[in-house]
Amino acid sequence: MSSSVNRQWLVTQRPTDRVRESDFLLVESPVPEPAEGEFLVKIMYLAATQVLRQQGAGEDPRPSGLTTGQVMRGRGVGRVVASRHTDYRVGDIVQGAFGWQEYALCRAEARDMVHVVRQRLAPFSTALGVLGPKGFTAYLGLVDVGQPVAGDTVVITGGGGGVATHAGRIARLLGAGRLIGIAGSPLKCREMVESLGYDAAINHRREDLDVRLRELAPGGVDVFFDNVGGRVLDTVLGHINKRARIVFSGRVSEKTGQQLEEQRIRNYWAIGRQQARMEGLYIYDRQADFHRAEQQMAEWIHQGRLAYSEERLEGIQSMPEALQRAFKHRNAGKLVVRIDPEADSPG
Amino acid sequence: MSSSVNRQWLVTQRPTDRVRESDFLLVESPVPEPAEGEFLVKIMYLAATQVLRQQGAGEDPRPSGLTTGQVMRGRGVGRVVASRHTDYRVGDIVQGAFGWQEYALCRAEARDMVHVVRQRLAPFSTALGVLGPKGFTAYLGLVDVGQPVAGDTVVITGGGGGVATHAGRIARLLGAGRLIGIAGSPLKCREMVESLGYDAAINHRREDLDVRLRELAPGGVDVFFDNVGGRVLDTVLGHINKRARIVFSGRVSEKTGQQLEEQRIRNYWAIGRQQARMEGLYIYDRQADFHRAEQQMAEWIHQGRLAYSEERLEGIQSMPEALQRAFKHRNAGKLVVRIDPEADSPG
Repeated sequence: MSSSVNRQWLVTQRPTDRVRESDFLLVESPVPEPAEGEFLVKIMYLAATQVLRQQGAGEDPRPSGLTTGQVMRGRGVGRVVASRHTDYRVGDIVQGAFGWQEYALCRAEARDMVHVVRQRLAPFSTALGVLGPKGFTAYLGLVDVGQPVAGDTVVITGGGGGVATHAGRIARLLGAGRLIGIAGSPLKCREMVESLGYDAAINHRREDLDVRLRELAPGGVDVFFDNVGGRVLDTVLGHINKRARIVFSGRVSEKTGQQLEEQRIRNYWAIGRQQARMEGLYIYDRQADFHRAEQQMAEWIHQGRLAYSEERLEGIQSMPEALQRAFKHRNAGKLVVRIDPEADSPG
Repeated sequence: MSSSVNRQWLVTQRPTDRVRESDFLLVESPVPEPAEGEFLVKIMYLAATQVLRQQGAGEDPRPSGLTTGQVMRGRGVGRVVASRHTDYRVGDIVQGAFGWQEYALCRAEARDMVHVVRQRLAPFSTALGVLGPKGFTAYLGLVDVGQPVAGDTVVITGGGGGVATHAGRIARLLGAGRLIGIAGSPLKCREMVESLGYDAAINHRREDLDVRLRELAPGGVDVFFDNVGGRVLDTVLGHINKRARIVFSGRVSEKTGQQLEEQRIRNYWAIGRQQARMEGLYIYDRQADFHRAEQQMAEWIHQGRLAYSEERLEGIQSMPEALQRAFKHRNAGKLVVRIDPEADSPG
């Protein structure tokens, strides 16, 4: 260990829509020693996401439970530097809910959501973005279910910043012909076309989705990657081709009973008529497939075939600023903070 | 050819709910000779079905179009006895919309829906029942999509007389544990339990489907074979297990816009949450798979592993009576009329 001091950000008051530096307090404590069954992670990168605001909609399905006086929650990737846990060895690269600190003591319980990073071809910061849950969702949804073949028309919902960011690039890489995005804001639509390689994007709140699909996908839809459900799903189902594949990664937990009632669909009949396939993708039940996705995507990144965007800040002192930025620029690329200056060194 | 006379039933007036012998007239005409591109079928069996009444719901999706003075429509299976068609040879066994007659001249156009029977293990009359479109639907739905494994809870809609007849038996043969039927009448429910091997049946019009499923399938539903859609589909979706498979063979053509509106579902969210798969099965797009289904099912029948029921009448003179019976006993076994006394002989 290069230091015996562990800098940590404690929560002083729960941040709401506006993040203030004064919501947090940077303290120093001794680097802890693992007890039996524990291991110590030296954190390389921390993510700054809007998960605190978007309860349930972000990467972390747990209830917020932020407690003042405790280390601020957040996902990171780091290296195991000491271990008394049989499954984790010194040198392992791990991603998990380590919190805003330089060192995290970990028991690898369910709530820590620890994932071992096996790939060694792409920077480790990717474990917080393209090689994290959203990227895996995009990969597994398209490779295992969507299976676009050359010339297919692929429609993806969700706008930038989420699964759709990676799914668009992977669909193209797999040979998708026409690539159409659906999002709920002009900003997201613009980003899909200008930065993410989509041929067109439809704002489902302002445009007539049915009419626009007839214009943009006159030959019908072969693959639909949806995490919206409701009216959007219903409308796209009206355009599916024979043997279409629908990847449905919608999360029921986001919906109230009333919303569900409003989100009834009727075009599921098209699944029967078109011999289509609709398959659910709930990524937290798919951890066994993560390494396959990670390995293939890391190779694609290494070969320069799969792009990803990442905005970096430096040093643990930057965490509140990073979170402020994430709150302001909802659609910016993945924002990561490098905590360990020696991150990505061969270790 | 054993005879130079072709007995035919002509339509004298279009039958409605009640079939009268006087709706038809038995005439004799010469056995025709095939012209270039035609072949002649000596009919072995004719089916008597309710297709005329259940427009769109039966095996034949074409509009009725019964014309007085013409040969009454109906499906049959027979042997090619003369051919000037390159794809059909003397001795071939064929199933198609041959009409109520002893000999049919056929051009194998789309409207004839001719299917070559390749299997030689089961009686040829099965081509009008278990080895016909409904049996193939049951087989392909379960083998290709539903894939029940030992101990699975399988739910099938539709009552007796249709796909559910064969699907229940095939599901059991594939290892289904608990087998639950859903139908819309007490008669169909009773038949499923008493004659078709179902463990239980739910009358979705009279019973609370949700409550009954909780009682009968407390461990959840692994495979759902549905051709009903709407409220029934919605309710069962609320009970599906992880990785459940839903075979959806509903036919949108049966529904009006108003019905579709009433048949909106909301529990499609369970497909996402449970990583389930819902796949459409439209049998008339699946003809390439028919022979595979036919071969396997014929073997099962030959081995005594797959049961089927069939009620037989004798002779072409019995056709009006057969149709009367089919109209009266909606849930009787498949009713076939043997036209050729030498049917099923090695030929």
